[in-house]
Amino acid sequence: MGGQEIEQLIRLLGRLPGFGPRSARRVALYLLREPHTRLAPLARAMERAGEAIRTCSSCGNLDTSDPCHICSDPLRDKGLVCVVETVGDLWALERAGVHRGVYQVLGGTLSPLAGVGPEDLNVSALLTRLHEGTVREVILALGATVEGATTMHWLMDQLETYEGLTVSRVAQGVPMGGALDVLDDGTLAAALGARRPA
Amino acid sequence: MGGQEIEQLIRLLGRLPGFGPRSARRVALYLLREPHTRLAPLARAMERAGEAIRTCSSCGNLDTSDPCHICSDPLRDKGLVCVVETVGDLWALERAGVHRGVYQVLGGTLSPLAGVGPEDLNVSALLTRLHEGTVREVILALGATVEGATTMHWLMDQLETYEGLTVSRVAQGVPMGGALDVLDDGTLAAALGARRPA
Repeated sequence: MGGQEIEQLIRLLGRLPGFGPRSARRVALYLLREPHTRLAPLARAMERAGEAIRTCSSCGNLDTSDPCHICSDPLRDKGLVCVVETVGDLWALERAGVHRGVYQVLGGTLSPLAGVGPEDLNVSALLTRLHEGTVREVILALGATVEGATTMHWLMDQLETYEGLTVSRVAQGVPMGGALDVLDDGTLAAALGARRPA
Repeated sequence: MGGQEIEQLIRLLGRLPGFGPRSARRVALYLLREPHTRLAPLARAMERAGEAIRTCSSCGNLDTSDPCHICSDPLRDKGLVCVVETVGDLWALERAGVHRGVYQVLGGTLSPLAGVGPEDLNVSALLTRLHEGTVREVILALGATVEGATTMHWLMDQLETYEGLTVSRVAQGVPMGGALDVLDDGTLAAALGARRPA
């Protein structure tokens, strides 16, 4: 479709999640029709975000500062750590505004079939925090999937050695097979509020 | 969600056609998780396409050369001009590989309600070609909408002054692979009215 620069743009857009060739062409045309007011600002925003992005060395969140704005917020309760699978889950909980503590982003779930073992999960920062003795409660906010449950049970084994630590899990209410970041705020709030001792 | 650069990226992604806040966040996260292998190449492709993009001064196509690769192709029949509303329509016809002539992209349709008049449509290049006497046939490939029909009738008025010029329009009817019971009444009426000997 008119030049390799345009074809390359369509090819890369087609790799985005939720995109097919048709939507890639549609977005490319939308951008190319107004290169100065649509394409250039988006390209610039991508570059700036790419330069600014940091992975929080404390919790694994994606942010423009390290530690992230949550970990460095003096008003957040460092004694209350919510463990989530992905940054998308963290963002979903933040949008709902239902967690006043901090997070630990695992970056995935245990999956023997996919070759994902404990060493692939980002838990070292959590263990460091636990060794420091500053953590009162760990909330396990993992998806209600086989992998989520496997990961939760493995984490519960790791955490039971810490005396006086409360380990809780988000309430059932998360639909089976559902990922956290597609849930509505009310469901997230209910699940977090009804957490039970693990 | 973590820094104004990230928020700005999500905001601009959310303006893309077919995007909402949720899909914008999903794509932003997908890109930000791998800034070097996902975000940077796409930003670069956008910049390059933005620099390379030209509007063909002959037909109105978007391409990296002016005249576009269709208008400058000696094998395309310059005597056969297909009039379309948008570059997206042109691309669709090119993908189908069903037109061996050249194009004229109007850049829209007549719409008195939206304040779009004849002076807003890109027809001057078509009229120049017609004055030069090189055009044998004009195919009107406009959408089967009220605006498309209005534009088609206006164009037919403009074109009837050219003696010996054939003006045709794309057929309306049942789309290939389409079942009759899912079609709207207008399409069924058009298909029945334009029936031909089997």
